[in-house]
Amino acid sequence: MLSRYAQNLYIPDMPSAQEILPWLQQIDENRWYTNFGKLNHEFETGLSQQLGKDVCVVTIANATLGLELALMALNLPKNAYVLIPSFTFAATATAVIRAGLCPLLADIDKNTWSLTPQLAYEAIQNHNIATVLPVSAFGYPQPVDQWDRFTQETNIPVLIDAAGAYGNQAIGHSASVVFSLHATKVLGIGEGGLFVTRQAEIAQQIRQMTNFGLNNCQVEMVGTNAKLSEYHATVGLAALKQWQQTSQHRKRLIQTYTHYLNQLSLPIIYQTPDIEKFIWSAFVLRFPLIQDVADVSKHLEQHGIETRRWYYPPLYQHAAFKHLAHSDDLPNVRTLSPQLLGLPFHHFLTEQDIVYICNSLKAYFQ
Amino acid sequence: MLSRYAQNLYIPDMPSAQEILPWLQQIDENRWYTNFGKLNHEFETGLSQQLGKDVCVVTIANATLGLELALMALNLPKNAYVLIPSFTFAATATAVIRAGLCPLLADIDKNTWSLTPQLAYEAIQNHNIATVLPVSAFGYPQPVDQWDRFTQETNIPVLIDAAGAYGNQAIGHSASVVFSLHATKVLGIGEGGLFVTRQAEIAQQIRQMTNFGLNNCQVEMVGTNAKLSEYHATVGLAALKQWQQTSQHRKRLIQTYTHYLNQLSLPIIYQTPDIEKFIWSAFVLRFPLIQDVADVSKHLEQHGIETRRWYYPPLYQHAAFKHLAHSDDLPNVRTLSPQLLGLPFHHFLTEQDIVYICNSLKAYFQ
Repeated sequence: MLSRYAQNLYIPDMPSAQEILPWLQQIDENRWYTNFGKLNHEFETGLSQQLGKDVCVVTIANATLGLELALMALNLPKNAYVLIPSFTFAATATAVIRAGLCPLLADIDKNTWSLTPQLAYEAIQNHNIATVLPVSAFGYPQPVDQWDRFTQETNIPVLIDAAGAYGNQAIGHSASVVFSLHATKVLGIGEGGLFVTRQAEIAQQIRQMTNFGLNNCQVEMVGTNAKLSEYHATVGLAALKQWQQTSQHRKRLIQTYTHYLNQLSLPIIYQTPDIEKFIWSAFVLRFPLIQDVADVSKHLEQHGIETRRWYYPPLYQHAAFKHLAHSDDLPNVRTLSPQLLGLPFHHFLTEQDIVYICNSLKAYFQ
Repeated sequence: MLSRYAQNLYIPDMPSAQEILPWLQQIDENRWYTNFGKLNHEFETGLSQQLGKDVCVVTIANATLGLELALMALNLPKNAYVLIPSFTFAATATAVIRAGLCPLLADIDKNTWSLTPQLAYEAIQNHNIATVLPVSAFGYPQPVDQWDRFTQETNIPVLIDAAGAYGNQAIGHSASVVFSLHATKVLGIGEGGLFVTRQAEIAQQIRQMTNFGLNNCQVEMVGTNAKLSEYHATVGLAALKQWQQTSQHRKRLIQTYTHYLNQLSLPIIYQTPDIEKFIWSAFVLRFPLIQDVADVSKHLEQHGIETRRWYYPPLYQHAAFKHLAHSDDLPNVRTLSPQLLGLPFHHFLTEQDIVYICNSLKAYFQ
């Protein structure tokens, strides 16, 4: 017997109404519902304890707005190039455009499926790049030490889109990080995001920008409304309490998956050999012998298994991004993006579900 | 004896934890936390029943993002002029700038404290204005029939920033409306906003833009993340249930205020003679004999009464907006903005509190 949610690609496992109730009652008492409330402060404190004592955490209404504000805070010339991977979720590109800048689409490394410092060094040879926005693809952490060195050597600031990498991604000395707390993420609170930095001044500026740029009654810089409400802080406090359990559960799921997949000797490639080390926001496989995984997806669908092609189509195939310039021919994105498929990955999967999914996959290759 | 919150300018009166609990339990069952969930749909349906059968309601993470997306959806040339009153909250201006457009600061009518169609007709004589963004100041509704006619005659679209005017502001045939559901507003849900229109196609476009511009897997236009989570929809559903009570309570508060103020024959002017007809988001008085209400504010503070100078300073005095062009000399804003003062206005005020506030005000003039 498969579990109730066996067939679903993703089912959020969020704190229940009962679990958030004590904090909701605190909201009633405080009569403070948003605008840097007490629970938001408590949530930020809890997060910074987890992320490292000397980091500054600013909650944001969502990660996309976090990217927009962090890019605006760099004060770059209008339409300056921001190097981003062409293999990422749409928000990486929309955030750049909404910040008045221009995405320059880069390739990814074929092993880590990520925009690497190496690729950025190559890109700046031929392009005038104002900032680099690498992505922690599916949770795979970006090497902040290397990015810090990149900034030191080139004077080009780096902002890391670590939307799906809470729990994995370190914070750089110069490289700041944006995390997503969307319901589909490891630390999910519904809608939410974090801007995390080691530079207190920038944190203060971003916080001000989440509140229109106001300092007391003066708008000193143009911001927007990107404040996190006390309701979401409430969910965040409950989610933080469950973090150890949540993150361990995710790691065990991956161990179960790899345990069975490795037995089957399928022609698949993981994003990294040490896949079991990380807390993933999605479980994505590469099928290196397959030109287009549509067939695999269809086969699994016939077995009642939902999959998703991530990130597919790649950015340069979206109507809104077709006109964007590329830093090179994007050979790896062209090869890899049709070969990647996300399998069901959530806390309601049983071992039996995973065995069923792995065997269904094996059947495709027989 | 004054009530616990007598001295506070504003204390939100939001649904309690117990009141939202039944809907939160529905979230648990649905396991759907954002991205156009069932409760969001239910909330939108409830709102459109209240706002008029043939209107389309799109929930937004907050009103500022609603303005940004509605302006972006107009597809105007970069840096085109948007006529806005120079007497408004900062968000009106930041939204225009964040949409890649340029605010042109207008005067207000000295009676309604608002940017009127008359002022807009005058402004277009001398300026190339791409759109007009009038504000429903403190809740005072904009005349949509006149704005619809303005658009018909001039081909210039009008978007109404009705942040504080839920319950008062009608929806135009061509003029769309953005409401705020911030905790300080009449229908408060913490953070939230609404885009309301009679044009189904535009509603659909704005909805798509709140989800990055995605249509299935294709980004067709550049959007952002401006989705309202199920948690806020939950608060919204509870708030909507209490709407009759909430709005009547606000009207009674105004009646109590005017009853006592009228007896005292103070040199004050209301925003409109029919002030009792509307549901206000703030209670603001004009002191026409006073050059600068700082003294009045200080006097009331000595009586333990919190006040706020709204909107003060006016936009052209903010560091971030000093460089903006004006449509004229803004004579009424220059005269009025130093003469306006907001008094405590919230559901926890008792009649005795209001008597105390009115008498404290009288003492200033003796």
